[in-house]
Amino acid sequence: MASILTGDREYFKGIDQIKYEGPESDNPLAYRWYDENLVVAGKTLKDHFKFAVSYWHSFNGNGADPFGGATHNFAWDEKADAVERAKDKMDAAFEFFTKLGLPYYCFHDVDVVDYGNDINENDRRLQTLVDYAKEKQAASGIKLLWGTANLFSHKRYMNGAATNPDFHVLTHGAAQVKAALDATIALGGENYVFWGGREGYMSLLNTNMKREQEHLAKFLHASKDYARKNGFTGNFFLEPKPCEPTKHQYDYDAATCLAFLQKYDLMNDFKLNLEVNHATLAGHTFQHEMQVAADAGLLGSLDANRGDIQNGWDTDQFPNDITEVTEYMMVLLRAGGLQGGGINFDAKIRRNSTDMADLFYAHIGGADVFARSLIIADKILQKSDYTKIVTDRYSSFDGGKGKEFEEGKLTLEDLRAYAVENGEPATISGKQEYLENLINRYI
Amino acid sequence: MASILTGDREYFKGIDQIKYEGPESDNPLAYRWYDENLVVAGKTLKDHFKFAVSYWHSFNGNGADPFGGATHNFAWDEKADAVERAKDKMDAAFEFFTKLGLPYYCFHDVDVVDYGNDINENDRRLQTLVDYAKEKQAASGIKLLWGTANLFSHKRYMNGAATNPDFHVLTHGAAQVKAALDATIALGGENYVFWGGREGYMSLLNTNMKREQEHLAKFLHASKDYARKNGFTGNFFLEPKPCEPTKHQYDYDAATCLAFLQKYDLMNDFKLNLEVNHATLAGHTFQHEMQVAADAGLLGSLDANRGDIQNGWDTDQFPNDITEVTEYMMVLLRAGGLQGGGINFDAKIRRNSTDMADLFYAHIGGADVFARSLIIADKILQKSDYTKIVTDRYSSFDGGKGKEFEEGKLTLEDLRAYAVENGEPATISGKQEYLENLINRYI
Amino acid sequence: MASILTGDREYFKGIDQIKYEGPESDNPLAYRWYDENLVVAGKTLKDHFKFAVSYWHSFNGNGADPFGGATHNFAWDEKADAVERAKDKMDAAFEFFTKLGLPYYCFHDVDVVDYGNDINENDRRLQTLVDYAKEKQAASGIKLLWGTANLFSHKRYMNGAATNPDFHVLTHGAAQVKAALDATIALGGENYVFWGGREGYMSLLNTNMKREQEHLAKFLHASKDYARKNGFTGNFFLEPKPCEPTKHQYDYDAATCLAFLQKYDLMNDFKLNLEVNHATLAGHTFQHEMQVAADAGLLGSLDANRGDIQNGWDTDQFPNDITEVTEYMMVLLRAGGLQGGGINFDAKIRRNSTDMADLFYAHIGGADVFARSLIIADKILQKSDYTKIVTDRYSSFDGGKGKEFEEGKLTLEDLRAYAVENGEPATISGKQEYLENLINRYI
Amino acid sequence: MASILTGDREYFKGIDQIKYEGPESDNPLAYRWYDENLVVAGKTLKDHFKFAVSYWHSFNGNGADPFGGATHNFAWDEKADAVERAKDKMDAAFEFFTKLGLPYYCFHDVDVVDYGNDINENDRRLQTLVDYAKEKQAASGIKLLWGTANLFSHKRYMNGAATNPDFHVLTHGAAQVKAALDATIALGGENYVFWGGREGYMSLLNTNMKREQEHLAKFLHASKDYARKNGFTGNFFLEPKPCEPTKHQYDYDAATCLAFLQKYDLMNDFKLNLEVNHATLAGHTFQHEMQVAADAGLLGSLDANRGDIQNGWDTDQFPNDITEVTEYMMVLLRAGGLQGGGINFDAKIRRNSTDMADLFYAHIGGADVFARSLIIADKILQKSDYTKIVTDRYSSFDGGKGKEFEEGKLTLEDLRAYAVENGEPATISGKQEYLENLINRYI
Ligand SMILES: [Co+2]
Ligand SMILES: [Co+2]
Ligand SMILES: [Co+2]
Ligand SMILES: [Co+2]
Ligand SMILES: [Co+2]
Ligand SMILES: [Co+2]
Ligand SMILES: [Co+2]
Ligand SMILES: [Co+2]
Repeated sequence: MASILTGDREYFKGIDQIKYEGPESDNPLAYRWYDENLVVAGKTLKDHFKFAVSYWHSFNGNGADPFGGATHNFAWDEKADAVERAKDKMDAAFEFFTKLGLPYYCFHDVDVVDYGNDINENDRRLQTLVDYAKEKQAASGIKLLWGTANLFSHKRYMNGAATNPDFHVLTHGAAQVKAALDATIALGGENYVFWGGREGYMSLLNTNMKREQEHLAKFLHASKDYARKNGFTGNFFLEPKPCEPTKHQYDYDAATCLAFLQKYDLMNDFKLNLEVNHATLAGHTFQHEMQVAADAGLLGSLDANRGDIQNGWDTDQFPNDITEVTEYMMVLLRAGGLQGGGINFDAKIRRNSTDMADLFYAHIGGADVFARSLIIADKILQKSDYTKIVTDRYSSFDGGKGKEFEEGKLTLEDLRAYAVENGEPATISGKQEYLENLINRYI
Repeated sequence: MASILTGDREYFKGIDQIKYEGPESDNPLAYRWYDENLVVAGKTLKDHFKFAVSYWHSFNGNGADPFGGATHNFAWDEKADAVERAKDKMDAAFEFFTKLGLPYYCFHDVDVVDYGNDINENDRRLQTLVDYAKEKQAASGIKLLWGTANLFSHKRYMNGAATNPDFHVLTHGAAQVKAALDATIALGGENYVFWGGREGYMSLLNTNMKREQEHLAKFLHASKDYARKNGFTGNFFLEPKPCEPTKHQYDYDAATCLAFLQKYDLMNDFKLNLEVNHATLAGHTFQHEMQVAADAGLLGSLDANRGDIQNGWDTDQFPNDITEVTEYMMVLLRAGGLQGGGINFDAKIRRNSTDMADLFYAHIGGADVFARSLIIADKILQKSDYTKIVTDRYSSFDGGKGKEFEEGKLTLEDLRAYAVENGEPATISGKQEYLENLINRYI
Repeated sequence: MASILTGDREYFKGIDQIKYEGPESDNPLAYRWYDENLVVAGKTLKDHFKFAVSYWHSFNGNGADPFGGATHNFAWDEKADAVERAKDKMDAAFEFFTKLGLPYYCFHDVDVVDYGNDINENDRRLQTLVDYAKEKQAASGIKLLWGTANLFSHKRYMNGAATNPDFHVLTHGAAQVKAALDATIALGGENYVFWGGREGYMSLLNTNMKREQEHLAKFLHASKDYARKNGFTGNFFLEPKPCEPTKHQYDYDAATCLAFLQKYDLMNDFKLNLEVNHATLAGHTFQHEMQVAADAGLLGSLDANRGDIQNGWDTDQFPNDITEVTEYMMVLLRAGGLQGGGINFDAKIRRNSTDMADLFYAHIGGADVFARSLIIADKILQKSDYTKIVTDRYSSFDGGKGKEFEEGKLTLEDLRAYAVENGEPATISGKQEYLENLINRYI
Repeated sequence: MASILTGDREYFKGIDQIKYEGPESDNPLAYRWYDENLVVAGKTLKDHFKFAVSYWHSFNGNGADPFGGATHNFAWDEKADAVERAKDKMDAAFEFFTKLGLPYYCFHDVDVVDYGNDINENDRRLQTLVDYAKEKQAASGIKLLWGTANLFSHKRYMNGAATNPDFHVLTHGAAQVKAALDATIALGGENYVFWGGREGYMSLLNTNMKREQEHLAKFLHASKDYARKNGFTGNFFLEPKPCEPTKHQYDYDAATCLAFLQKYDLMNDFKLNLEVNHATLAGHTFQHEMQVAADAGLLGSLDANRGDIQNGWDTDQFPNDITEVTEYMMVLLRAGGLQGGGINFDAKIRRNSTDMADLFYAHIGGADVFARSLIIADKILQKSDYTKIVTDRYSSFDGGKGKEFEEGKLTLEDLRAYAVENGEPATISGKQEYLENLINRYI
């Protein structure tokens, strides 16, 4: 990682490079677990995680919520000219990335620079900032994990973008996606994400769900074809979320996305960017969503955050629960890692976290909980009897009739015959409490 | 419908044939809306609904819950011999069906007669009752909407049936399914249902989800092949449910089932049996689940009931909300009806509904709310501007560039060009409040 | 109701006075059930409901949500000067109230005119608008159901207002409440509401809940004392809500407010303003919340709206479910009506409801569903055996030993003796399905 | 703790006394953190926790759920005679208690011995087992944390016990409570619990909530008076739970119980027995419920378990989350401990946890997570800046005008004057992320 990169002006004064100091450190502005060079399960932590900072939460999100205005005042948000303002913001962003020492970032088009209603002018603005970012990336070594277009904030998308009943609106979405793909390619972005914030319905009463989903599929095909034609070789990710802002979003959860990708012939190019809080809202554990994706070959990338179990909206808090993240990391390691993506902190500090240092505490805490949990998960898998217990549980299918069944060689009559012949089966404990204790033994 | 069929003994004394008396009737033991001969949208209500009574809730469910024992004492449950007891129960069941005047019933194998651990003896018992039922069906005209096997209550299935880590247990499931298929075929059952009550996991920690789902797919293929070979031409239904009794069930919701059926090449033979309360538990409206199924060609059959919005378990109450059922019926009519199935009251009277008449009130109320709602839904679709509003909303895709997009003829650049050329789109209201008022205008 | 009151400019062009036209009317801009002069249970509908329009949702809410900006553009929001802009808005508001023909309105201080950080200037602005409103009220006959102060939107309240850990912030809340009380008194407001949007915690980790609640109690006492001293004789209302914007709000639900009011000696002056969507978020039915309040003598006023059962935030949709509202109205009638308050549409049209008429459809639909449901509820109570069934259910306490028990005359030994003497009790059905059918008979 | 107490027969063969072996131990049948003699914050762990084993889950719960029968087969459940069977069960129970080395147990009347419908006979049975238990307690040193009566399982309580609409049923509840109080007193039980499993409603439609709650209050007064008269000096506990088995229970959560206890003059004798899973079902964190109780002087006792965040019923799993339990222990320590009660494992092993050792693993894991978390919580409170940060946050109320406000000396005008004089307050961060990281630093 390059030394700290500041522009003309230092935005995070008094905060230096965040360093790894080890578990015994009491310094709240140091990593206690995230040692990027530590090798676990054959890879450095840096490579396992490919941590990314999200532009939107950290440099655009101002603490406003549906019941109140901004609480975070940004020194980079003062200039009158949109492009100049955007450059200041990018200076602040790269100062933050480099002070934090995380290797990646992510953005939506409109995070980087404000858009108006003129497509060509928007494209020019974005192009200017892409050029600016290219220099920053080169100087810092920071990379773009993925790019994306925001097709949900503008008024015109209130009824959807790719799923808008009005074709005219859809075409504006296409214009934005084209520019965002261009930007991603120009910056060497490793992946491209589609989060369909308004791709769903507010009321089923006024909605032709089938036609809207067919449009979405067509839109994704067109986007993919354009990107491939222009040399993009990275992954495309759908990001499942069940609802909010719409009443119901089409990319509800991992299984729903799997159904869609299969149906519309998108399995070859698309994988999933899973977000913890979206799993929560969909009624799943995150480890479940990860496993569903992994089993389908779709475990692309992760948006790290956490929800509030008692609150039914996307709180996007920073991750902090060691037990839970350990279970995520067990799935990750057993799946052989992420396909193309990394771990993006799609998380925001609280409305009332108004100190400059709060943004650092939040990311440090997040990186540390992942690092610590990966180390724990690796120990569980390497040193305990965990893997053996789970593997042995299915051993009746590793040979004999069980194996023949797996190979599709047995009829229903064959199976019945086996049952009659072998009588009532033994009772075999699931050993859940034993395994839960085992996890805690390594935390 | 035949006249009332009682066995040696009348179980529901004092209650005669339930008749249609019209909306003005104050008779709580009469239909006010369910006139089976009324023609709506080209079909009689009887044919639209194919209402079925569920054996398990009405003749086995005794009011027990996790915190208390039986409250419903069944006069048919007295004899010592399992088969004799089962015949009494079937007498009571057919007395109830015929008094109620609903045309179908449904059962699990173990609803009809108690099973022990001896497969051959179980098969004999079931065969005896199948013979008995055949006579009852012939005498009454009542038909079997679908049969199924209960692979979740027996201790041996505590870790799953088709997804059990122990192949030996799986084979017992196969034995039961074979017998239940035989019974269904023998009785002219029109469909066959798989509800995977234990096909899921209690803890992801001890589970190989991928391998379990592959086993499930193999199991379904073997079952289907057996049934087809033995002349069954009806539909197979998966019944989605997100959880309970397991922490997570594999057939989570309609979209998850769609993903599974596509992945494992089961789309040709399987459709869905959707249950209202299962939609609720999965975080969906039931009309959403119906629409997902309909759009995928999977709208097979419905388990009519309702959950309690504040309670997170499967309360299986009888349906009573006119507004909600009207929205179901709108989806049903627009989808062109159910594919093979009907509407089964998978619903139980409350633990403290202990009067003999309560079971009648419950079914009458359920049939009436469906009948009334179908009549309303048909009026909305035929007489109001509803259909036109929803259709017109998508008219930009019916011709011109929108149509070309639907046909896959436009690239991302084409779409962008259209946006540039046509400038900012007009703002078009979703008219949700107008449509909600419109529904109420017809209720 | 006065004839339509427009200011210099007509904002809702093309929409005339909304009139009652009866259930057969197909006019979407007419009341089909809300005939304000209809007498039900001894009172006109107008007096039963005292319907109010909320200033915030209808004249300030612009369709923005956490994922997107404004979609409703207001013609009254154009002038540069805050007070002039506020007068335009008030013109539009009274035009709307009078066209709609509903008798009341409600507002927060900052709904009426924008506030800055200068308390004296804010007070002057509010005073100017109060004078303006006074004329409008006189000209139209429209009345103020309740006033309130917004102590949640300004950045300074991010950690709470009356419960802010910083006394300094609390005093700003007091300044606002004083001015809002003055305004309410000046306008003849019939009640005053406290909704504690930030009175709760974001994290229990940094919170002294007990001390914060004691501050809240002191704050309410000081407010009440001031109002009483200045001649206010109306009711004060707490408005329960479990969460949002905070993780947990102190006025969680009706029972929690009851605990608080009892503990801090506020039962004489405070009642509750219950909101439907807040009940939903708290895990209750609204009829439950109403009954809890009624039983405690706290049923003050209602914020009519509905939530989305599948979405965990405050969607504030307009009410439309006849079955549910009928159950509310049954509680209302049995409780003898509201204590001081009325029914305020704390509801907003959807982000994508962008036609001028949508705001009318929404309020018309809301008023109609209440009117229709009250008529139904009255019939159920007057014409059916409902009341008798519920009353008779408790008849064992109307005389004999049951009555002595109610009077506190029996010891535990006495009760045991009765049980021994009388043996096992009879089983008595709760008749839930019968009663549910009965409700539908009258819908 | 006494050496292992077995009856005529050893039930948990092959499992010896569970000992503390320290965090490095890999023995799954040893405590790694629960060293009963370890002194933390001035008390031994044994005294902090007063861990109790629950009779019902461990010796009666057989793994059945609403979808399936027993999976745990009990060797102590074989004899035909109810009293002999009960003695075998008690032998097994005390063998388990002593092998586990936990100091307390808890029971409902019907856990200990089966009840029939004859009150006098039931009392005799219970008396016999009380005598038997007395000997066991003396021999082992195990004590009774609390006793209670099961007023929810018997058919007669299907409409409630103390809140049953039929006075006759209520008297049977009284008979049971009297006997359970006698038993508790005879065994030196330190507390007595009321969990009102059926005290609530299945449908508000058939319910007079106010009258039912008045009956409940009278019933509790009569019970308390009886116990006090007979020398019971311990605490009475209400156990809040929002629902299940009823749709809505009156003792919904801590705040609801506080409202009830205040209203019905029961604050002097009653405190709360809080259960983790019940907090979850009520939409609260458990630490919230504990703080509410502590602030009201009601923090009596805890039922340790956990729910499943994605499942809406009372799963009663054993606690295992270190982060969460640490937050409980912070509240516990800051509140000065429990008032009279202890920590009862109201938790059950899973349906598919069928090995004899599973019950041991479960309790060991539960005790360890509490022990470890208490040690962590104590360090946070003693060694970190946590306490200072939270205390300082409120320092503006420790002197000057803030203090005068707390003392009730300031009017609303005084408060406004302070605001005007002091201008806009500074923005003060809530430091949530900092505090969350701090917790993890000590885990
Ligand atoms: Co995300
Ligand atoms: Co999110
Ligand atoms: Co079902
Ligand atoms: Co169900
Ligand atoms: Co409100
Ligand atoms: Co609201
Ligand atoms: Co408990
Ligand atoms: Co529990």
